[in-house]
Amino acid sequence: MSFVKEVSEWILAGVGGIIQSIEEEEIDRMVETILETHDRKILLLGSGRSGFVGRAFALRLMHLGFNVYVSGETITPALTPDDLVLVISGSGTTTTIVAQAAVAKEVGSKIVAVTSHVDSPLAEFADEVVVVKGRTKIDQIFDYEGRQIAGEYDNAPLGTMFELSVMVFLDSVIAELMQKLGIHEIDLRRRHANTE
Amino acid sequence: MSFVKEVSEWILAGVGGIIQSIEEEEIDRMVETILETHDRKILLLGSGRSGFVGRAFALRLMHLGFNVYVSGETITPALTPDDLVLVISGSGTTTTIVAQAAVAKEVGSKIVAVTSHVDSPLAEFADEVVVVKGRTKIDQIFDYEGRQIAGEYDNAPLGTMFELSVMVFLDSVIAELMQKLGIHEIDLRRRHANTE
Amino acid sequence: MSFVKEVSEWILAGVGGIIQSIEEEEIDRMVETILETHDRKILLLGSGRSGFVGRAFALRLMHLGFNVYVSGETITPALTPDDLVLVISGSGTTTTIVAQAAVAKEVGSKIVAVTSHVDSPLAEFADEVVVVKGRTKIDQIFDYEGRQIAGEYDNAPLGTMFELSVMVFLDSVIAELMQKLGIHEIDLRRRHANTE
Amino acid sequence: MSFVKEVSEWILAGVGGIIQSIEEEEIDRMVETILETHDRKILLLGSGRSGFVGRAFALRLMHLGFNVYVSGETITPALTPDDLVLVISGSGTTTTIVAQAAVAKEVGSKIVAVTSHVDSPLAEFADEVVVVKGRTKIDQIFDYEGRQIAGEYDNAPLGTMFELSVMVFLDSVIAELMQKLGIHEIDLRRRHANTE
Repeated sequence: MSFVKEVSEWILAGVGGIIQSIEEEEIDRMVETILETHDRKILLLGSGRSGFVGRAFALRLMHLGFNVYVSGETITPALTPDDLVLVISGSGTTTTIVAQAAVAKEVGSKIVAVTSHVDSPLAEFADEVVVVKGRTKIDQIFDYEGRQIAGEYDNAPLGTMFELSVMVFLDSVIAELMQKLGIHEIDLRRRHANTE
Repeated sequence: MSFVKEVSEWILAGVGGIIQSIEEEEIDRMVETILETHDRKILLLGSGRSGFVGRAFALRLMHLGFNVYVSGETITPALTPDDLVLVISGSGTTTTIVAQAAVAKEVGSKIVAVTSHVDSPLAEFADEVVVVKGRTKIDQIFDYEGRQIAGEYDNAPLGTMFELSVMVFLDSVIAELMQKLGIHEIDLRRRHANTE
Repeated sequence: MSFVKEVSEWILAGVGGIIQSIEEEEIDRMVETILETHDRKILLLGSGRSGFVGRAFALRLMHLGFNVYVSGETITPALTPDDLVLVISGSGTTTTIVAQAAVAKEVGSKIVAVTSHVDSPLAEFADEVVVVKGRTKIDQIFDYEGRQIAGEYDNAPLGTMFELSVMVFLDSVIAELMQKLGIHEIDLRRRHANTE
Repeated sequence: MSFVKEVSEWILAGVGGIIQSIEEEEIDRMVETILETHDRKILLLGSGRSGFVGRAFALRLMHLGFNVYVSGETITPALTPDDLVLVISGSGTTTTIVAQAAVAKEVGSKIVAVTSHVDSPLAEFADEVVVVKGRTKIDQIFDYEGRQIAGEYDNAPLGTMFELSVMVFLDSVIAELMQKLGIHEIDLRRRHANTE
């Protein structure tokens, strides 16, 4: 097996383990919270690669008929206490993300955080937390040099494990939402952008 | 096991199978082509969720020191014959992507396509193709109604399998690039945006 | 007066002349068409600096309560024959823009083009055209070398005059829409994003 | 004259007055600072419509050969003390912008702020300030109700005057940079994206 395929196997095994370790209660509560939003707004917050994972989820939520927005894009309406803010941040410390979560908290919107760190500034603002492990940037402060020399991190650097785990996890959440809403793939196809 | 975790397992098994089925020769050639770009430009092309996967890869290429751009963003300089264009499209038929690939072809840039369809308009423009299976939008034309009734597609609707497979595959390519370039995670951390 | 202020004066005089030369009938029809959309979707199409001008307009339309989207961003739903597509392109020839307009035409959406060229591929797809002069990229083909030597274009290179004229023109359209809809600034403030 | 054209005239007169009131010393220093960056990085920061104005400027800086980036896009490398951060914010109080300026300050990058408010949090972080008047969101707190009833703000709501003034002002700065660098329009055309 080539090195690229070996690394893929290793990554997929890691992602599988991380997803299995998520608390089922946290998953159920998140699904319930999303279902409860009905036609109120959902705002996705995330930076860098976590932001791309968030946008991929947002796109599917739109396909399911949710009224969803992505922070940093042109059309982002004012938050209200009725709205749901979904934040993705492995470390839970990203400057702009924490600043925006603070505003959402002040407004009174419901905040659901997907993060590796329950004790992060982000998690403190959150009404609900879904803990997705995965070595994040912040982990590396501890014994960083030792592990670095062992090259342990070079196959999945920085937030890679977190980002991939959240991407697969959220796509699985989509499957559950589709089932609970009685929506089928053919419905998604109708809402899929035709001008891309 | 909850439904969400079951779907995750099913997705990960599928992604694993798809990645193992990629031709090793195509992987090697793609890695070689990227390594050969040195400080010439790499432009990432992709739409919707494939576009987010492309951006996640672009970000890591930047962390590795490559001179990389993403189509559709503010700073996208003119292509030249020296440049490399990496295109991600499951169907290989997305209107704007094919239109941009056609321009790149005319300019004379090298085009590498990651797609499920070797006989798509995109693949015809490409100098190199990496075939990543995964049920894509176009597949669904054939016997779509039959499978739809069986609900076969509802756990991973539309391009989900392709997008996740390409995301994990390209992160594995990053690991190989790091090894070949002698770059370690600590080097990536230095190039990671600090203003997010 | 410093050179920067001199150029500003020269630009503003040019922009004023360009806006005065727009056919009033074309303006009235555009305003009417936007007012008729009610809660149907408006999609903004534009590339590069014309794209930024389009987004600035889209943001204000959102503030006025319109259901507006911007092509190329995460949340762009499928077009239907009911929808309105507003396209901004000086030359009317930009590859991806024309490709998207062609799709919109096929879908049957109404297309309003803001362009300098009534005989461009874009204008041919359009149901309505608002001609905004301004030296565009395409103009420069004719006697380009001659004018270039005279340095005539260096104070407002490429599409500058078109982009600035369209930006001021569309902000004036916003004022008219506010008046016709009985909307005041205080209403806009309520819809202004609070998480920026 | 139609209402739209009347408003345009009124806006252009206002923009002209605002630009004439900018301190020439502040303009000269900003131009000098940009010229001094050579091949070091320039990062543009701005939110909402100010962000679009910033991107339009960034695009031209790229056409002039500068090494420029836009915050919030995929490719945003780590800031260093050598880099220049250009921030556009009328109020100087936008949450995420101030948070990012704070990080840039900590890193030691040079910060140039274009704002209406010299006493804003943003201006305090800045090494240089270019004051561009224009009624900004923050102005409206004072005697807002009174003016609102008079409808004084409905022709150019929220940050409109600031945004348009900065757009024209920065395009005039481009003209000065072209002159000082001996760059002509024909050079810009060569760097203009050909894949749009």
